[in-house]
Parts: sequence; C-alpha cells; structure tokens
Amino acid sequence: MKRLRLGMVGGGQGAFIGGVHRFAARLDGRWDLVAGALSSDPARASASAENLGLDPARSYTDFATMAQAEAAREDGIDAVAIVTPNHVHAAPAIAFLDAGIHVICDKPLAGTEEDAQAIAAAVHRSGKHFILTHNYTGYPLIRQARGLIASGKLGAIRIVQVEYAQDWLTEPSDGKQAAWRADPQRSGRGGAIGDIGTHAFNLANFVTGLTPSHLAADLSAFVPGRPVDDNAHILLRYGGGARAMLWASQVAVGNENGLRLRVYGDKAGLEWSQEDPNRMAFTRFGQPRQIITRGGAGATEAAMAVTRIPAGHPEGYLEGFATLYREAADLISAEHAGGPKLLPGIVEGLDGVRFISACIASAEAGTAWVEF
Amino acid sequence: MKRLRLGMVGGGQGAFIGGVHRFAARLDGRWDLVAGALSSDPARASASAENLGLDPARSYTDFATMAQAEAAREDGIDAVAIVTPNHVHAAPAIAFLDAGIHVICDKPLAGTEEDAQAIAAAVHRSGKHFILTHNYTGYPLIRQARGLIASGKLGAIRIVQVEYAQDWLTEPSDGKQAAWRADPQRSGRGGAIGDIGTHAFNLANFVTGLTPSHLAADLSAFVPGRPVDDNAHILLRYGGGARAMLWASQVAVGNENGLRLRVYGDKAGLEWSQEDPNRMAFTRFGQPRQIITRGGAGATEAAMAVTRIPAGHPEGYLEGFATLYREAADLISAEHAGGPKLLPGIVEGLDGVRFISACIASAEAGTAWVEF
Amino acid sequence: MKRLRLGMVGGGQGAFIGGVHRFAARLDGRWDLVAGALSSDPARASASAENLGLDPARSYTDFATMAQAEAAREDGIDAVAIVTPNHVHAAPAIAFLDAGIHVICDKPLAGTEEDAQAIAAAVHRSGKHFILTHNYTGYPLIRQARGLIASGKLGAIRIVQVEYAQDWLTEPSDGKQAAWRADPQRSGRGGAIGDIGTHAFNLANFVTGLTPSHLAADLSAFVPGRPVDDNAHILLRYGGGARAMLWASQVAVGNENGLRLRVYGDKAGLEWSQEDPNRMAFTRFGQPRQIITRGGAGATEAAMAVTRIPAGHPEGYLEGFATLYREAADLISAEHAGGPKLLPGIVEGLDGVRFISACIASAEAGTAWVEF
Amino acid sequence: MKRLRLGMVGGGQGAFIGGVHRFAARLDGRWDLVAGALSSDPARASASAENLGLDPARSYTDFATMAQAEAAREDGIDAVAIVTPNHVHAAPAIAFLDAGIHVICDKPLAGTEEDAQAIAAAVHRSGKHFILTHNYTGYPLIRQARGLIASGKLGAIRIVQVEYAQDWLTEPSDGKQAAWRADPQRSGRGGAIGDIGTHAFNLANFVTGLTPSHLAADLSAFVPGRPVDDNAHILLRYGGGARAMLWASQVAVGNENGLRLRVYGDKAGLEWSQEDPNRMAFTRFGQPRQIITRGGAGATEAAMAVTRIPAGHPEGYLEGFATLYREAADLISAEHAGGPKLLPGIVEGLDGVRFISACIASAEAGTAWVEF
Repeated sequence: MKRLRLGMVGGGQGAFIGGVHRFAARLDGRWDLVAGALSSDPARASASAENLGLDPARSYTDFATMAQAEAAREDGIDAVAIVTPNHVHAAPAIAFLDAGIHVICDKPLAGTEEDAQAIAAAVHRSGKHFILTHNYTGYPLIRQARGLIASGKLGAIRIVQVEYAQDWLTEPSDGKQAAWRADPQRSGRGGAIGDIGTHAFNLANFVTGLTPSHLAADLSAFVPGRPVDDNAHILLRYGGGARAMLWASQVAVGNENGLRLRVYGDKAGLEWSQEDPNRMAFTRFGQPRQIITRGGAGATEAAMAVTRIPAGHPEGYLEGFATLYREAADLISAEHAGGPKLLPGIVEGLDGVRFISACIASAEAGTAWVEF
Repeated sequence: MKRLRLGMVGGGQGAFIGGVHRFAARLDGRWDLVAGALSSDPARASASAENLGLDPARSYTDFATMAQAEAAREDGIDAVAIVTPNHVHAAPAIAFLDAGIHVICDKPLAGTEEDAQAIAAAVHRSGKHFILTHNYTGYPLIRQARGLIASGKLGAIRIVQVEYAQDWLTEPSDGKQAAWRADPQRSGRGGAIGDIGTHAFNLANFVTGLTPSHLAADLSAFVPGRPVDDNAHILLRYGGGARAMLWASQVAVGNENGLRLRVYGDKAGLEWSQEDPNRMAFTRFGQPRQIITRGGAGATEAAMAVTRIPAGHPEGYLEGFATLYREAADLISAEHAGGPKLLPGIVEGLDGVRFISACIASAEAGTAWVEF
Repeated sequence: MKRLRLGMVGGGQGAFIGGVHRFAARLDGRWDLVAGALSSDPARASASAENLGLDPARSYTDFATMAQAEAAREDGIDAVAIVTPNHVHAAPAIAFLDAGIHVICDKPLAGTEEDAQAIAAAVHRSGKHFILTHNYTGYPLIRQARGLIASGKLGAIRIVQVEYAQDWLTEPSDGKQAAWRADPQRSGRGGAIGDIGTHAFNLANFVTGLTPSHLAADLSAFVPGRPVDDNAHILLRYGGGARAMLWASQVAVGNENGLRLRVYGDKAGLEWSQEDPNRMAFTRFGQPRQIITRGGAGATEAAMAVTRIPAGHPEGYLEGFATLYREAADLISAEHAGGPKLLPGIVEGLDGVRFISACIASAEAGTAWVEF
Repeated sequence: MKRLRLGMVGGGQGAFIGGVHRFAARLDGRWDLVAGALSSDPARASASAENLGLDPARSYTDFATMAQAEAAREDGIDAVAIVTPNHVHAAPAIAFLDAGIHVICDKPLAGTEEDAQAIAAAVHRSGKHFILTHNYTGYPLIRQARGLIASGKLGAIRIVQVEYAQDWLTEPSDGKQAAWRADPQRSGRGGAIGDIGTHAFNLANFVTGLTPSHLAADLSAFVPGRPVDDNAHILLRYGGGARAMLWASQVAVGNENGLRLRVYGDKAGLEWSQEDPNRMAFTRFGQPRQIITRGGAGATEAAMAVTRIPAGHPEGYLEGFATLYREAADLISAEHAGGPKLLPGIVEGLDGVRFISACIASAEAGTAWVEF
C-alpha cells in the first residue's frame, strides 16, 4: 500500500493531542511525518522537529510559509494534521486547503461559527479532503453498533442516553491543557460542551444515523470564575420522535474519560463505554443480554474491517484514532473510493459548532427548546 | 423485642407488591400478619387469607369493615399495610388512621393531589404514624451514602445523575401489573414518573439531603396508545446551585430494574446501582476510586445498624425493604424514639405527588422550568 | 401452607450463623421458632431466648433435656436447627434424631469422621430427615446452572474451576468466630478446607452432578502458629475425565466471601460468583456470551421455583439460605414428596468430611493423588 | 531519538504474530522495517514484502542469506524480529546473532531444550542483545504491580493465582494457527503450557520477582487425538513459602484471552486481568479496595514511563507490545544504558522452556513435585 507524506501544525513539546495524532498516523504504516510547524515558538519548533527526526529544512515556524513551501515541493506533503487549539484551526486549515493540500483537523472544527463557515468555504472551493478527528467513531464496536442500528436490529430508535464525564477540571487549574480550554478566546464560547460535548453529540449521531431537530440545555460553571461551562445537561428531540439526554461534565469526581452511549429501540438496546471499548452489551427484548466483543462471535464486516488483532487482545484509544488515519490514507489514495464514507468531515464539523451555539442559545433563554 | 400485629389491605393472590411487604415484615421477626382485606373479590380474599394462615374471622372483604373491627379488638392490629393500586391508597389509609391504626403504605402516596392532601390531613388529625415504603432508602449503602454527604465528605454537591430504567413495558401489555399502571384512573396521571420516577426522585433527595427548587420535564409515551408516559427526561435545579438529571424509563430494552444514583461534590463523588447494591464507588478528587462494600472496611454506624450479615454475603431488595418494616416496628414500639427518623412518611409522599404534577405541568408547557 | 415448629441448639447472643438460620427460617413464613438451647451458658441462654420471644419454659440449657422435653410435648418442635461449632454437631444431632425429631444442621457435618459416621447411623436408624445447610445450593442461578448441565447444554464436562477466597484470617485473630475455627479440637483438622473448602466442593458437585475420583492437595498455614490450614490448593480428577482446581483461602487480602464457580464443557461454559449472585455468564462455543439473570429471560422452571421477586430486584444470601428452610418445610410436610430432592443431606455431609480427610492425607503424603 | 532498522523472519501473509510485531515496531516511530525473509514460500515472501513496501533487494527467501547480506551492508538491519513457529526460532536466531545482529524473538524461546541451549550459547558468544517478546510485561499496570511488590507494599508474598484461559481450540481445528500449535514437531512438546502457560508463568515471575522451586502438573488433552495438552492444572511452590496455582486452557468455552493474575501478601493483595488492562484492584488488609487506573491517581514512575496517553483513554495489547520494541530500541541505542533492565531475554526464555519440560516430567510422573 502506498505510504503518504504528512505534515503537522501544532503538536510541539508539551502538547497532548499532537502526540496522539502521531501515534495514530504511525500505527498502520501508511503515513510518514515529514514536515511541521510544530510550535509558534521557534526554539520549541526546532527542538520538537529534531526530536521527531524531521529534516530541518521542513521544520517551519509558521503555517503559511509551510503551506506554500510544501505545495511547491515535488515531494511535498499529501496532507496536514492541524492539532492547535480551537481558535487556530481556521487560518491554517484554509491556508493548506487553498494550497491544494488535504487537511486532517482536530475537533471541534473551530471556536466560532464564522471560522467554521470560512473553513467550509475553503473545503468547497478547494475540493480537497477534510477529515475531522472525531476519533471515537473509529472504535470497531462503534462501527458495529452503527451497523446494527442501520440494519434495523434495534427497530425504531426511541431513546438515546449519551454522556461524557471527566473530573480533571474539578478545581481551578493553571495547566496548559486546562488554560486554553477554559479561555473563550482560544477554545470558543463552549467549555465542556465544546471539548467533550461535541464528541458525545457526534458519537450519538454517528451510531444512530440521526440528527436532532431540537435541543434544550442547562449549562453550569461550577468552578468560581470559570468563564465557560464545565457541566452541561442537555435534552434532545429528533424528528422521528426519539428523545435523548446528553450529559457532559469535567467536574464529575471519579470519572476519567467516561464517554458512554446507550441506545434503545423498540426491538433491542445496546450499551457501550469508551473506557471498556472491547465489549458492548446488546439485548433483544425478552432475551438475555449478550456481551458482544470486538472481533468475537458475531462481529460484523464493518467492525472486522477496522479490527487489527483477535478478540480478547484489547485495542484502545490509539487504535481507534489510527483507524481514522488509515481511512484518510485510503481516501486520499482513492484505494477505497467506492466504499461508504464513514470518516467525519466538514459536515460533522459544522454540526458540532452549531451544537455549541445552540446549547448556549438555549441556556441563555432559560433552557428553551432551540431548533438545531 | 416486642412483636407487633400487622394487617394488610390488598396483596391477594396474583398481586406482586403485597408478597414483597409480607417477606419484608417477616424477615426480622417483628411482625405477625393477623388480619387482611386481601382482595375486593371475596373468593380470592378468603383463599388468600387461608393460604397465609389467617384466622378466617379476620379475613375481611372491605377495608372499612376491617378498620372498625380491628380497632375494636383487644388484640387488634398495630398497623396496616396498604398495598393496593395507587387510586385505592387514600380511602383505606384514611379509614385506618381515623380508626387509630398506624399505616404503612406503598408508594406513590396517591394518584391525585386531592387524595394525597386528604391522607395528609388524616395523618395530622390522627397523630398516627404513616410510613411510605420508598424501600430503596433501606439499603445499607444508601444510608452510608447519605451519611457521607451529610458529614461533608463530598463537599458542596454540584451534580446528581439519577436514573431508573426498566424495559418491561416496551411492548403493549395486558398483564395485571401493566394494566393498572398504564391506566390514569388507577395509577394517576403519571406513568413511569409515578411508578419509578418517584423512587428515583425520593432516593436522590434522601441521599443528598436536598430538595430541588425547579424542574423541567420532557415526557414521552413511546408505545402507541399508551395514555401515560413511559419515558421521562427531567432536569432539576437546587437552591444551592446543584443541578441534576433524572431519567425514568419503562421501555429501555435490556434494563431490568436499573435504579442508579451518582452524586458529585467539589471534593468527592459516589456511584451506586440498585442491581449491585452491596458495592458503592467512592472517589476523593485526585485519589484512586474506592469500592466500599456493605459491611466491609469503612462501613459507617448508620450502615451497620441496618446490616444483617457480614460483607461478601449479599443482601438484596427484600432486606432493604425489611429494614423499613423493622424501623416501623421500632417507631411504633417507641423503642428508638430518640434516634434520627429516616423512614419516609407523609412529607416524602406529598413530595412525590407534587413531583408528578410538576413534571406533567412542565411537559405540558413545553419543558418549561416549573417551581417545585 | 402448614407452619412448622422449629427449635434451635446454639445461636445465642454473639453467635453468627444462628442468626442467619433464624432469618432464613422466618423469610417464607413456614417456621415458628418455639424452643431452644441457645447457649451452654445459662444466663446467655435465657437472655437470648427472651430476646427472641421464646416461652421461658422452652428455653433449655442443654440439648439432651431439650430433645426429651420437646419429643414429649404435644406441640413439640417438628425440627431442630443445630448451629453450634463443628465438634458439637454430633451429640445433639443424634439426641434429636433418636428422639424422633428432624434435624437441620450447619456444615460441615462434623469435626471427625467418627462423629460423622455416628450421625449417619442415627439418621438411618431414626428414619428422620437430616438437612445439611450447604446454603449456596439454594441460589436460583445455581439451580439453573445445575439444570443446564444436567440437560446437556454444556456437553461433556471437561473443566471445573471453583474457588472460595476470603481474607478475614490474614492476621492472627482472637475473635470468637476466628478462635474456634482455628482450633482443631472444635472445628476438626481442617481449617479453610473445612470451613469454606467444603462449601466449594459441595457446590461444584451439586452443579455438575459429578463427584471426583481422586484429589491432590497442597495445604498451607501462612499465619505463624496456626494449627490448621488457611490456604488450600487442590487438584481434582473425575471418573469421566474431567479435571478441576479448587482453591480455598482465608488469607487472600481483598476477598470478602469470594465463592466462584466456572464450569466448561465441550459445548458451552458458565461462570457464577456468589458476591454477584443474580447474574450468570453462559456462553455457547462460538456465540456471544449471555448474561443470564435471576428471574430474567430464559429462567428455568427450577430457578423460578426458588425465585421470590422479579429480575433486577436482587436476592441474596439470606434468600438462598431461606430456600433450604422452605424446602425442608416442604419435605417434612410431605407437600412436595414426589419432586426431585435437591436438599443436601447426610450423603453430602459424609462427602464433606471425607473431602477434609482426603485433603489432609494427600497433603501429608506430599500432594499425592488420593482416592476419594 | 535515533531510528533503527529492523528485519523480520516469518510474518508473511496469513501469519498472525508477525503483523503484531510490525504494529508494535511502528507505534513509537523508533524502527523502520527494511528487510525480511517473510516466508519460506518465495511467491508469498515477495508479495508480502511488496505489500509492506520493502526494497525487493532486501526481500529474502531464506534467513541464512538474509543474515549474511544484511550484516554486509553499510545500512544493514540493527535487529531482526523472529516470528516463525517455535521450531524455527533457533536456526535463524543463531544465524543473526552470529552475524552480529541483535535478535527480538517471539516466545516460547524454542520447541526443545537443545534448541534453547543452542540459542543461549549464541547469545553468549555473540554478546548481542536478545529480547524475548513476553509482551504482557509491557503493560503499564504490570510494571506498577511489579514495583508495588518490590517496594514491599504487599508484604511477604503468600499466594499467586495466575491463569490464562482461551477457548479457540475447543474443537478439533485445521486452521493454520491451530495446526502448528498442536503439532509437537513444530511447537514442541507443550501445547497450552507452551503457547500460553509460558506467558502466565513469565508474568507471575515478572510481577512477583519470584521463581518457583517446585511444580506439580496435571496435563490434559481434552480434544480426542490432540497430541499435546490443551488444559494444564499446575501447582507451584516457592523457596520463601509462597504457593501458586497456574491454570492454562485453550478449551475453556467463553474465554477469549483470559490472562489474569492475582497476588496476595500478608499486607495487601492485587488483581489484574489482561482483558481489562487499564484497571488493577489493590487492597490493603482492612481497607477498602482501590481501583488503580493506568495513568490515574497513584500511578508510579515505572508505570508512567511506559504510558502514552492519559487515564481513561484505554491502551491495549499493541501498546504493551510496542513498549518492548521501544525498550529494545533504547537498549540497542544504549540510550538508557543505566536503567533497570525489564526486558525479558534469554534467561526468561530458558526458564520458559524448562517450565514446559518440568510440567511434562511432573505429569508423566503422576503430578509429582518436580524441582524447577
């Protein structure tokens, strides 16, 4: 299989998600990281590049220069990964798209609706691929869950209970990761709803194939002085009559990364938790609960396609993330051009930003129902 | 310890909760069932009485006769257990209270606010004890959770996530248990919110010591033609700033009796599930999660007081229910007159009926916030 | 249903298992405790009797007097529960049997083979019922497991993994419960193998319907100075080729009452844990694991016969124990004379004592295979 | 960090463990796979090489040629991964070691003691590094467990319960993976004890820091006609008095890859399961059980050193395996020359082969104790 060349914007020393993208890009051997604007701080940029073994000539200190230089090279990058804070997604994304380079961008799409629309416009005018790393869609059992629902195994969907509970922002915090996420200038107006609520929202949509028509939100900032929400209680309604609850919290003590999805139809129900991603409960009404395992008995083709090792050998977060990089490579190489496109992209990105806006609008109107 | 004499209204053959009350009354050897109006059907009443070994002279076919006759006997009952459908709580409760007999009544208090108020009035004018069997408050770890919060171990409460998920009403049903619960004439205007939502609401209040100030509800009846809700999504706000989500469902396929409570403060969090009642997770912020077991290391005095057997020997639903009967015996015998009164009573009963009304009012107003 | 009259030997204040027997006898309303020799200490005996509401005339200080007096009464006891330490099982059991009174005896049967044989002789000459409270056989899912195997759902049994892990004897202990269990004069030569190993052994036999042909044991006493084993590692072989491991420990830190059984055949496997008794895993080869719940989908008739409340409402240790008392009442009343006799009795008692002896013989011979 | 060049022997299309080694080698970006003798079938070898993007000139059809050719190149491989069936470990390992190339070899070391000794001799005479991929030692919580025990947190070790249960060989099987594992000519005389028993044995030794002094084994071949064991029941004794049970099975229906370790000392106990590798139970005697999470509260330096992503983001089998490749790169680059050497190597390999021999010797002698 063809290997592709990857560049990266952000992700220098001290960053979190940049490292995750690199693990994900490496796992399947489909990408070589060859260029980067890893930090806006020149010293950190070059030290980070050296540590990663980049050619110094392809270590840039600004993304605009990088986009132009890479576009001009014979061996320029095939795609760029943008792993900067939310407010620095739009400018580099547009620069690379306009330079004819595919973009893989961390979520949420942007900190503002304006930025989001600007990215969308660039995607459309460039015709380039844009992948948004809602990585939880890469878990094999999530693919299986989506297929079970699409094929009618659950019947008509009635209820969705989705939650994403963490506790790392329980107290006021000065850490780098905490600081930008709680700064509306850098992360956008959403706190927990932007950082993790968008993941929960995306996951529920991905698995059910549904998009809500209305939502009502009660947003809280429990830590004194925090300018964005750290807990969100959200009700959702769907056109077909289904109803959902979405809970996102970064102050729920005892929760590490508790993304959990439960979906109930009129024939069956399923339950999955990100912290135990190799198992899924599936129950047909009136029958015993089944524990479906990744790669185990009853695994579907869609799940096996993204499964690397046998049942009982746990795959985790990085493997799911890597699946997005593998599928991005397939997409860009046009090797699987005909298959269903499961990769989240600009549509999901716009949905996420609209979700944040709708939650804030509802909360400001006293938890009123807001059209989505 | 003194044994007391118990009568029962309802609970004839084919009933569910009456049998539960009898198990609960027997377990600790504090009650003797000696009289009953077990069914309004005379044949079933007498067959049921015979099966239970009652003196035929004390098997009645109507509660009014029973109240008068028992009040007149030297060896008349000390208390009556009322285990009829919701719409038949008020009349017998009032009859026995007015006859000077203590009442133990199944929940919810009544099907209507009028009935509820009438019972409350009878309680006040009679001066008799009134116990409402919100049985889940009898679990030892629920007592322990309440104490942990009261003593400040969780800090200021921020978030409550409580849910009660079942699936037995997933399809239209003709069974006796299903029929009256889905009939507004017999169960009241609440479906799932009345039958199980009131339990969830009561449990959250009991454990946190908080009562919400406002709620907003989205009620659904997923089964076509069902005249009451079978799924309820409810947001709650408390005076002190805490927020809650309450989910009650009888159509969540794969859930048997999934009452689950999670409470998070600014210092610690706890999680408990009724189907696994002998374990509770307790996590101080920044420390490893602890699994507290019933009767195990760290058990509090309040929990040990209602614990019958050592850690690792699971107690269950009947034991928790029996604790209410034991404490009712203590209360009536005045053996523990000075201790804290943990038994749910008329106040909790009125709260439950108001909860149902508030949910319906909110739902009818488009999930508006309604004062509680 | 006819109520029976129960007497008790042992179980005075400060005892553990006597209280458990009383809970168990009360739960289903089939027994009235009317007489007792609750303690060999007269003051404790009478205080205990008073606390339990016994007629003082039927509170005895020695079992021999009690056996004779009760046998002579018109309203004498139907059966006696013997809940004394192991070395005081034989004398009262024989006295009551010889007086024509049925016996319900705690396990293990006796501290010595001589005592065990003497009891067996009394059972045979008296023709009276003798029930040994291997209470774990009363759990509904254990009944279901037994039925699954008997009906061939697992195919030919290959492997049994059974364990019973506790930690309460991790350190030298002076408590009353610990003291007699670690005293060969009172508990017999077996420590952990007698107190809990016999339960594990009995449970494996009950569920599989198999009795091993040979065993090999490695016994340890980890606590310095302890005269009996506190940890036992045992291998078992069965005539049909199946093999088992049995682990019993009272020094496995972090285990409360960890009795766990796993059985694998050539078609399917099942797993059950006493601390989570309302769930059982059942897996057919090549199919997803099913979680069978007590009273839930797929519950068998044998399980439902001993199930009191619906699925999701956990039953526990006392309910399982009570099932033995209920079935004892049925047996003695001859109400279910024709059904399969599942109650453990003298055969299982002799097996247990032989199991202890065989383990000790094997261990003394350097873990040699010993015929069972 | 310096990238190293890797070759591979075995691992062509259709193989399992070769792909795992490649994932592991790629994850941290420390290795480039540049050469291989991927199959003894020339067509398969070259197709596999092309698929992996190898230079055709460095795709060999026999390992001997490869060893010589790579040793002669300026840019020759730094190390070779040997991922062939057990009986084809010795010849290539010796060829590469003698050519001065470091070896990373799958386990068990060899199918016979002679082969194992020959490899050991080559390691010693070459002075090259030899790493045996007992990959389960790479899990962060396993490193943490080892550290907890080494630092005395468990006190004196008393009991080890280790098991490795699978079910994929429940029925006679013709698959490639099953075929060679059940063929004594290719896998050695051990079946389950060699394939998975050695993992369990190694893991127990790694975590406890103990090596047993004696063992006694009961080996079974439940599938008719199977020439090697598919179930092993093993007792172990240690010099210091500790005792262990080891169970390895490939016919335990319902188990996928159930490697589970429990260790109990006189102060504390711990429990870990490979299928849920991001959690470990740790209990101090008399205190509540703690759930230690990978990367969570209380994580030790040793665990954090091999942790890639935050708590709650599950790492799995490939990450643990990759840790061995990362540490191999460190070792070969001498970047961490001074640290503790945790990588399993020739000593552990010899131990594994001796373990297999000892089990067979004990089983043939009627489960006699055999010195280890």
